Amino acid sequence: MIVLIAPDAFKDCLSARQVADALCRGMMRFSPEIIFDIAPMADGGEGTVESVVDATRGKLVQIPVMDPLMREISSFYGISGDGKTAVIEMASASGIELLGESERNPWETSTHGTGELIRNALDRGCEKILLGIGGSATNDCGAGMAEALGVKFTNRAGDYPGPGGGALSDVEKIHMDGLDPRIISTEILVACDVSNPLTGPHGASFIYGPQKGANRKMVEKLDRNLEYFAGVIKTQLGKDISHVSGAGAAGGLGGGLMAFLGARLMKGFDMIAETTGLEEKIKLADVVITGEGKIDGQTRFGKTPFGVAQLAKKHGKPVIGVAGTVEQGAELLYREGFHLIMPILEKPSDLAYAIAHAEQLLERTGERIARMLNFGS
Amino acid sequence: MIVLIAPDAFKDCLSARQVADALCRGMMRFSPEIIFDIAPMADGGEGTVESVVDATRGKLVQIPVMDPLMREISSFYGISGDGKTAVIEMASASGIELLGESERNPWETSTHGTGELIRNALDRGCEKILLGIGGSATNDCGAGMAEALGVKFTNRAGDYPGPGGGALSDVEKIHMDGLDPRIISTEILVACDVSNPLTGPHGASFIYGPQKGANRKMVEKLDRNLEYFAGVIKTQLGKDISHVSGAGAAGGLGGGLMAFLGARLMKGFDMIAETTGLEEKIKLADVVITGEGKIDGQTRFGKTPFGVAQLAKKHGKPVIGVAGTVEQGAELLYREGFHLIMPILEKPSDLAYAIAHAEQLLERTGERIARMLNFGS
Repeated sequence: MIVLIAPDAFKDCLSARQVADALCRGMMRFSPEIIFDIAPMADGGEGTVESVVDATRGKLVQIPVMDPLMREISSFYGISGDGKTAVIEMASASGIELLGESERNPWETSTHGTGELIRNALDRGCEKILLGIGGSATNDCGAGMAEALGVKFTNRAGDYPGPGGGALSDVEKIHMDGLDPRIISTEILVACDVSNPLTGPHGASFIYGPQKGANRKMVEKLDRNLEYFAGVIKTQLGKDISHVSGAGAAGGLGGGLMAFLGARLMKGFDMIAETTGLEEKIKLADVVITGEGKIDGQTRFGKTPFGVAQLAKKHGKPVIGVAGTVEQGAELLYREGFHLIMPILEKPSDLAYAIAHAEQLLERTGERIARMLNFGS
Repeated sequence: MIVLIAPDAFKDCLSARQVADALCRGMMRFSPEIIFDIAPMADGGEGTVESVVDATRGKLVQIPVMDPLMREISSFYGISGDGKTAVIEMASASGIELLGESERNPWETSTHGTGELIRNALDRGCEKILLGIGGSATNDCGAGMAEALGVKFTNRAGDYPGPGGGALSDVEKIHMDGLDPRIISTEILVACDVSNPLTGPHGASFIYGPQKGANRKMVEKLDRNLEYFAGVIKTQLGKDISHVSGAGAAGGLGGGLMAFLGARLMKGFDMIAETTGLEEKIKLADVVITGEGKIDGQTRFGKTPFGVAQLAKKHGKPVIGVAGTVEQGAELLYREGFHLIMPILEKPSDLAYAIAHAEQLLERTGERIARMLNFGS
């Protein structure tokens, strides 16, 4: 029997690999003859770097980059075990969490640091970039990111208009000739689970501006700036990003990545599944185990275990879901490819206990699953 | 497929029948084609009356009897659905919980009320008595119980020596001729999970006297009284109960039941298993489900689920254990007939939540078990 273990991380508790390893240890205790394949999953959000590094036995790289307000900070990204693929969370260089409440100001903030991370990955020989773009502090349509990779922006006077979403209305010319030449041969995949367009009432500024520190008036100006900047891009680069789904992700970084780097946006889960060869692994497995810290009715809407289950269902493989918390609504998943959902707790206990003991609880859940698979035989 | 559901009660939460019914409902939701057999279990202790009444769809009888200090109280016992078997917990008439702290005094307390319950059951046509004898307030060797059934005790002067363990040293003669004539044709089974002899350092007085309110000096006197009384029994009735295992249970009620009523002491679980025909049911089942509020390392020592598992193991039937709390040590049961132990909790929660939601949690656990049994098929 071949068992594929493909969980997401248990947030604030264990990485996807730790979850998979614990389940595997528990199952092996009862069924040493099972063949295990482990594919730690992620959805492109927080924890994606850790999952891919863990999954491929890669490494973390720490480098100094500019934060959203152009101050040097220490940031990180991951390189896969084969050294070919970089996995980057934009939030580690340009994220809202890097700023204090009072510093949050999308008029000024730049995605420059994210571009530095990409450049560093190219310097280290990576040929593929996986980019998660959740949690940004910016609204600059990726202009800062492009600058860090050699693109130049000038105003009417031929000067640099400055960083941030506020300066976009000054950009008269985009100079693509300085773009890092390695970009053209680099595959850049962007994990993007939102479909916001760049501008308008559902665009980057109106939907995400307020949580980044913009008041109503600034939101309106930022939206006009993005609209203007998209026009410049369209005219000079021939790419119309103003109405593309997902262009508004991360303050327009989604659109900028498409326009400046030729990046491809895709669902976060699909990106990870593609990178890890998940579908091939599922085809080879007899049973698929997935999981997440919490499984509930929301799990149906694009979360990792649901993605795993959908792929497994496609190939007729039974899926077991494992979770620290199983909430009302989880039973709906029984119609969506899940054959069984197993909570891991063994007695009344609080969240702190569950987190502190998650590894042992997962091991014992793994043993239970192995016993179950063995039932009657 | 035939599934036998034979759990104990979840203490302070659900009766054994409620547990079994909830599991059954959950399983039926997924597998309506399974044939279910339900055998609510008990161990002869608290909850035994409820379990047997529930199991046989019998009834509860409420009657006035004398409490341990010979005051009228309302007590109860159960009669099985066929009306033939009474199930009595001695604690409901002669229990320590019926007395305030300051009233506890084994010199005075009597098992009279327990005898009244037996007599009432005979009056209602019962031909078999199941008696649980845990939690007694008494140390009278069952003399009070015997009196209530017509046995007379007299002192040197030919008078009644009075109730309680203190008066036993006055008994000169036992008059068995008044014993209720129906006793001889009544099968009396006593659930007894302790092996204390009547007297000596491991006897009724020394081991259980202090918790019934006796000080060191009274304990010694009570022990001597039991020894003397056992001598009278031996001489006049020809029965030597002084060194019989279990004779010291319930302040010597164990010995008194043997001596005066010809009762048979057995393990509580064996008594219930015999009454409910458990072994026959196990033989017919493909899978056996048992359970208890808590399953841990102690479960190996005579608790109900362990008894069920042992019988199932004997007949090669796989056992699934279900519990609200699974504690360290439970894994030892995997060597003792249990194939799988399933906790019911689904998320971090306190005991009060677990108790309040136990029925739904058991239903969903039942569904999980049904899904598991269906796995791969």
